[in-house]
Amino acid sequence: MTAMAAALREYDAFMRAALEQASAAAAAGDVPIGAVIVRDGQILAAAHNRRIIDADPTAHAEILAIRAAAAALRDWRLTGCTMLVTLEPCCMCAGAIVLARLDRLLFAAADPKAGAVRTLYRLCEDPRLNHRVEVLAGLRAEEAGELLQRFFQTQRLAGKK
Amino acid sequence: MTAMAAALREYDAFMRAALEQASAAAAAGDVPIGAVIVRDGQILAAAHNRRIIDADPTAHAEILAIRAAAAALRDWRLTGCTMLVTLEPCCMCAGAIVLARLDRLLFAAADPKAGAVRTLYRLCEDPRLNHRVEVLAGLRAEEAGELLQRFFQTQRLAGKK
Repeated sequence: MTAMAAALREYDAFMRAALEQASAAAAAGDVPIGAVIVRDGQILAAAHNRRIIDADPTAHAEILAIRAAAAALRDWRLTGCTMLVTLEPCCMCAGAIVLARLDRLLFAAADPKAGAVRTLYRLCEDPRLNHRVEVLAGLRAEEAGELLQRFFQTQRLAGKK
Repeated sequence: MTAMAAALREYDAFMRAALEQASAAAAAGDVPIGAVIVRDGQILAAAHNRRIIDADPTAHAEILAIRAAAAALRDWRLTGCTMLVTLEPCCMCAGAIVLARLDRLLFAAADPKAGAVRTLYRLCEDPRLNHRVEVLAGLRAEEAGELLQRFFQTQRLAGKK
């Protein structure tokens, strides 16, 4: 197995952990998006979207994972860390990923409405900002998208918006 | 006094409250940026930057004020609210302001390095996003800028970076 294949296999296991977080969000009644932050092959933090559960507009999976990882390291700089998240981050989360100095971001599904890493903006790779993040997109995108579609379909059937 | 003049006088008092928050951040050893969120002429939440104090890369004044206001209202939607902040918000904070559905944003000093409301991006007024925020810039900009300059000058003299 090449080094690249080994890295992708490792990332795949971490993306499955992020998808498990997303499923947990749906089970709790929130939009199914999950994130994990890893360093040196270990999960430092895992979180899911809690916007509705916590009535907090900033409680996206990425923000909660960043806060948990920084608390674990007692450092606001997450140098050497990689985030895996099931949906392309929005402006808030892409901005936070840059501020936290993460090395790398892997996202699963693209977000055609609000994605700020590849779709509407490329905030993680802006040379004017004081840090740039390596981006990889598409790993387990189908599964991540299906979780979201199923959730919104169930919401519509239940008459919620 | 016209309605516009009355509104500006009211905003000025709230911007002074945001500047007091900024001063409190400097006194605590953090970069002096402060924010308040007001609704119906009352301050709902006030916060200052705590990134260093809390070792949390997301602990910008705007994020903390949004979280406090949402907790006060028990609602992630801050409809009808205005934020006043001493420095132009970054990508993370501009994104959070849109997500929280704030009506209006007033910032004091522009941020030439990372400002995402007018300088590098105009994230609060992007027609592709599902909410837009009315923006007013420049109120007490000089005072806000001086607080930051003085803080960084003191840091440099103390040999910190």
